[in-house]
Amino acid sequence: MARPRNPQLNANGELIHFITPEGLSRDVLTHILDTASNFVSLNDREVKKVPLLRGKSVFNLFFENSTRTRTTFEIAAKRLSADVFNLDIAKSSAAKGESLLDTIANLSAMAADIFVVRHQDSGAPFLIAQHVAPHVHVVNAGDGRHAHPTQAMLDMFTIRHFKQDFSNLRVAIVGDVLHSRVARSDIHALTTLGAAEVRVVGPRTLVPADFTQMGVRVFHQLEEGIQDCDVVIMLRLQHERMNGALLPSSQEYFHQYGLTPEKLRHAKPDAIVMHPGPINRGVEIASEVADGPQSVILPQVTFGIAVRMAVMSIVAGNEA
Amino acid sequence: MARPRNPQLNANGELIHFITPEGLSRDVLTHILDTASNFVSLNDREVKKVPLLRGKSVFNLFFENSTRTRTTFEIAAKRLSADVFNLDIAKSSAAKGESLLDTIANLSAMAADIFVVRHQDSGAPFLIAQHVAPHVHVVNAGDGRHAHPTQAMLDMFTIRHFKQDFSNLRVAIVGDVLHSRVARSDIHALTTLGAAEVRVVGPRTLVPADFTQMGVRVFHQLEEGIQDCDVVIMLRLQHERMNGALLPSSQEYFHQYGLTPEKLRHAKPDAIVMHPGPINRGVEIASEVADGPQSVILPQVTFGIAVRMAVMSIVAGNEA
Amino acid sequence: MARPRNPQLNANGELIHFITPEGLSRDVLTHILDTASNFVSLNDREVKKVPLLRGKSVFNLFFENSTRTRTTFEIAAKRLSADVFNLDIAKSSAAKGESLLDTIANLSAMAADIFVVRHQDSGAPFLIAQHVAPHVHVVNAGDGRHAHPTQAMLDMFTIRHFKQDFSNLRVAIVGDVLHSRVARSDIHALTTLGAAEVRVVGPRTLVPADFTQMGVRVFHQLEEGIQDCDVVIMLRLQHERMNGALLPSSQEYFHQYGLTPEKLRHAKPDAIVMHPGPINRGVEIASEVADGPQSVILPQVTFGIAVRMAVMSIVAGNEA
Repeated sequence: MARPRNPQLNANGELIHFITPEGLSRDVLTHILDTASNFVSLNDREVKKVPLLRGKSVFNLFFENSTRTRTTFEIAAKRLSADVFNLDIAKSSAAKGESLLDTIANLSAMAADIFVVRHQDSGAPFLIAQHVAPHVHVVNAGDGRHAHPTQAMLDMFTIRHFKQDFSNLRVAIVGDVLHSRVARSDIHALTTLGAAEVRVVGPRTLVPADFTQMGVRVFHQLEEGIQDCDVVIMLRLQHERMNGALLPSSQEYFHQYGLTPEKLRHAKPDAIVMHPGPINRGVEIASEVADGPQSVILPQVTFGIAVRMAVMSIVAGNEA
Repeated sequence: MARPRNPQLNANGELIHFITPEGLSRDVLTHILDTASNFVSLNDREVKKVPLLRGKSVFNLFFENSTRTRTTFEIAAKRLSADVFNLDIAKSSAAKGESLLDTIANLSAMAADIFVVRHQDSGAPFLIAQHVAPHVHVVNAGDGRHAHPTQAMLDMFTIRHFKQDFSNLRVAIVGDVLHSRVARSDIHALTTLGAAEVRVVGPRTLVPADFTQMGVRVFHQLEEGIQDCDVVIMLRLQHERMNGALLPSSQEYFHQYGLTPEKLRHAKPDAIVMHPGPINRGVEIASEVADGPQSVILPQVTFGIAVRMAVMSIVAGNEA
Repeated sequence: MARPRNPQLNANGELIHFITPEGLSRDVLTHILDTASNFVSLNDREVKKVPLLRGKSVFNLFFENSTRTRTTFEIAAKRLSADVFNLDIAKSSAAKGESLLDTIANLSAMAADIFVVRHQDSGAPFLIAQHVAPHVHVVNAGDGRHAHPTQAMLDMFTIRHFKQDFSNLRVAIVGDVLHSRVARSDIHALTTLGAAEVRVVGPRTLVPADFTQMGVRVFHQLEEGIQDCDVVIMLRLQHERMNGALLPSSQEYFHQYGLTPEKLRHAKPDAIVMHPGPINRGVEIASEVADGPQSVILPQVTFGIAVRMAVMSIVAGNEA
């Protein structure tokens, strides 16, 4: 029996939605990275715009608030010359008791081209992608604990930029892996792109042993977990975890899992340190590391615009 | 004595504000519909923009919140290449104790071209139109129970699209007619465009007998009211009515006035079903009807963009 | 020892940030006014846009809410063809516990060109300007009681428009001078541009005697304070002052310091009356004056767009 087609691809195997890196080929992911490379150089030009999406409408549908991520998509869309519409979706249709799919059908009828969807529930962007008209493309801007594919791709772009090749890399993801859509998407992307070894590091409550099923190695001790790594990805510790049942306290967390210059010496001398932001200084990362020579946190932000331009221009250019 | 000029028209009889269809000629309304026809075809083009309002400033002044309507005007204005400014008007000047007319005078002084006004009070857009500088055009996006003229014109556009000619049409408007600015504006537009018969249908508390003064027939029983109709316009039942003094309950309302496939059989077999949205499934309309072959609810949304483009380009093109 | 360079200027003495008129030369301020003159005439053209900032990104960072000021910057930036991003900054990064400088570093990394900053704390825009990347320009849209330089320059533009030359002018600033960033910036700009005499007028609680240190004359009686003045700038009385310890009541304030037609007769017959808006009718100014022939309050608003276009185009055109 033929394997069912990945719902993110059309019959030609081209990307029409971007919901999760899971199940996508190395070619598809590499094409995103290569396209983004072209957009990075735009920043050096006098006029930082290209007309690829002129006349197209991008709707930012943020059911969960995130000014920063929304803004990066808005910048990316405007640099592609698209018109951008920010819908305060929580206040509007949802408040009027309209169903998600009715809201989506209505917005599709306004001749939307791209929906950028952030939702607190895992699976919502996929549900939307299954119901939109053929002319609409869905880009997941983070859904529940499920996936954050553009964050994963900007992480991959950053790693490739600084390390060139994935095949010899040892990468550690440190922190609240259990609740992190970034960690899940990073693991899928790193595995597909051929990283030599992916590790997850954190307390047992936040990094359960069964993560080994995703093909990663599990560590509960920071120094051991980042030993000889080329890349250390620190995750943001959500405030609601800090004083909850899962952790003793943020001070204790920092003591055990906060990345200090001393602990970083366990990684390779040329290891890069990444973080999806916003950072909690003194919780998961020390300021000396965040602002230090191995940190590539701000380049991640810059590359994020280019990666989102790449994803939107690719999906909008392919027909369902 | 000469009849006073309609304040929506200039000395040449051209539309300079659009506050209500009431008192406008069939020619003026037909010109809006014909202009909108040209814009509908834009959706099929690669670049969905025209430069008609390039360099013009459209201000969305929503004193009453409505993300959906605001968004349709924003889309329409951007497709005309205008710059759009969404003012969170309730939070700003009003909060600082500034009067409506001072706010308007200030915004006019910023060289605005079009004010799109939604206000909870009937008459507010008209008051504004009387006080703006000559270079400013006012479009009413719904005021109190008074008027919702662009919704009426998109309804007319939809009817003409599916039924070609108004002169033989029997149209029923069903639901909370008493509190509905959509119903009032639809009645005025349908009458002016020459519909053969307009009916209003609903419980006595929401459809008082004196609606006959508007030239419509009043019905209190759904099956009888839509009998042999060509067009059935369902109105949204506001949540505040559902358990109030005016109605027994939303279940009882659905039982008597909710449009089901069985009840719809009383209308003509080729009748179209319309709704201004957002719909309350299982309150005023059954899902089988909303999603059924006679529903034209989503085409209404699409046509709404073209109609709002038409209205804005017409008023901005005429001098006071 | 050489005098340290003004941090708003580059090594060539060109404006790269606009934080306060204090310390800037008459040439720099006059260049802003002259540039704004060119933009005022734009309003008469069919297409009110120029491509000076095409492809540039302007971020509105309003830590303190001000829809009106934000909108004027948004209009100005779009008329320069920039892309504008309104960040609901209070709701976002600040809420996530991120530091001001981390937020700024992140936004800089998104290839921002101009930050327009409104902040409740005096000095915040200066702090930001000291930490941004060299490609970013900071424009202060009002910080604490410190400065509101674009308001001051639109006031200067209005005065020059109606009075041509500063050198013979007597200017009175009336009201809550103590808490007013507008008053402070107006005083600096008027002094630099060579106004013959600057006066501050108000009750002792709001206009302390030590204002003489700024080179102005202090008056506590309105009629005496505006006697023979060419320009009367009325300040907005904040609501929180009206019933506080500093003032008896708003009625009493109006009785003593509210500008009525009778009191205005003490100024020169051709004196102009200005106000930064929004006005409190019947508190600091009578309607007969606000709407009267000597009022230039609405021209101030119109000129404000041109002045903000001038400031943004000047700073963006100079390299750090």
